[in-house]
Amino acid sequence: MKGYVQVYTGDGKGKTTASIGLAIRAVGAGLKVFIGQFVKGMKYSELESLSNISGITIKQYGLDCFIYNEPTKKDILKAREGFEEIKEILISSDYDVIILDEANIAIYYKLFTVEELIEVLKSRKPNIEVIITGRKATSQIIDFADLVTEMKEIKHYYTNGVQARKGIES
Amino acid sequence: MKGYVQVYTGDGKGKTTASIGLAIRAVGAGLKVFIGQFVKGMKYSELESLSNISGITIKQYGLDCFIYNEPTKKDILKAREGFEEIKEILISSDYDVIILDEANIAIYYKLFTVEELIEVLKSRKPNIEVIITGRKATSQIIDFADLVTEMKEIKHYYTNGVQARKGIES
Repeated sequence: MKGYVQVYTGDGKGKTTASIGLAIRAVGAGLKVFIGQFVKGMKYSELESLSNISGITIKQYGLDCFIYNEPTKKDILKAREGFEEIKEILISSDYDVIILDEANIAIYYKLFTVEELIEVLKSRKPNIEVIITGRKATSQIIDFADLVTEMKEIKHYYTNGVQARKGIES
Repeated sequence: MKGYVQVYTGDGKGKTTASIGLAIRAVGAGLKVFIGQFVKGMKYSELESLSNISGITIKQYGLDCFIYNEPTKKDILKAREGFEEIKEILISSDYDVIILDEANIAIYYKLFTVEELIEVLKSRKPNIEVIITGRKATSQIIDFADLVTEMKEIKHYYTNGVQARKGIES
């Protein structure tokens, strides 16, 4: 079975949750899933549930604090370490589905380049399915991907002053 | 905490998986989740994983066979039973998050009406968060919802003749 590259981008809600849903579906069919979360370091509620599910490995490669500023050296280092780890995993046979959560944002902040990522994707084991999420997907990654969904924000309660709620947004 | 109504619609991939991801996030924070899947009766891989997670209840209200034809009496009956069950759950305090998967499609096929659904949503316990998925959301449900994301298909490998794969699409 050939693996494809799926991209979930856009400003709307549902990108990371869609990738988590894909992980759940995949393990339900006996596939092994690796989730690498770039930029993020915050304890999202899903970490709690996902770490209890056998067949899913999840790692974070960020500190989750630069998002409104410039990334620090430490942010870049964390993402770099993550990128190197992902590289190894993509040429191994350890996982069937690999999720690169917020990789688009990592590229946007120049933590690694889209050319580097595409090179790594090209050299991966051909059966591996890759899911890439995050706003601001570059045109190169869209061209390279087999499937692209844009999550378009039609309406959002944030605009009415609702804060992130535990278990719903974080 | 006031609960909101979230809608995930559009032709792109990621609507049901986003709702599953939300379920996973919610149980990670100790919330209780009910997933009612309209139209569907097929054994999707996610059922396997989700039924093993404590805090999530999942039920199907469909036969999954009419989607390219007209719904039969049995399809309508199944959806009706589901709708009545959902109605009860929405006025109880048993769950914090209620997912109505493919409810938009159920409305599109006239298994129940959007007016009925909105009436039930209005009378629900105010703390309950409701997630509604499916293509073809009506303008009434979009107006009523607090958050709406359109999953827009930018590129899809289906168009290249790829069949649904176990653990990825089903």
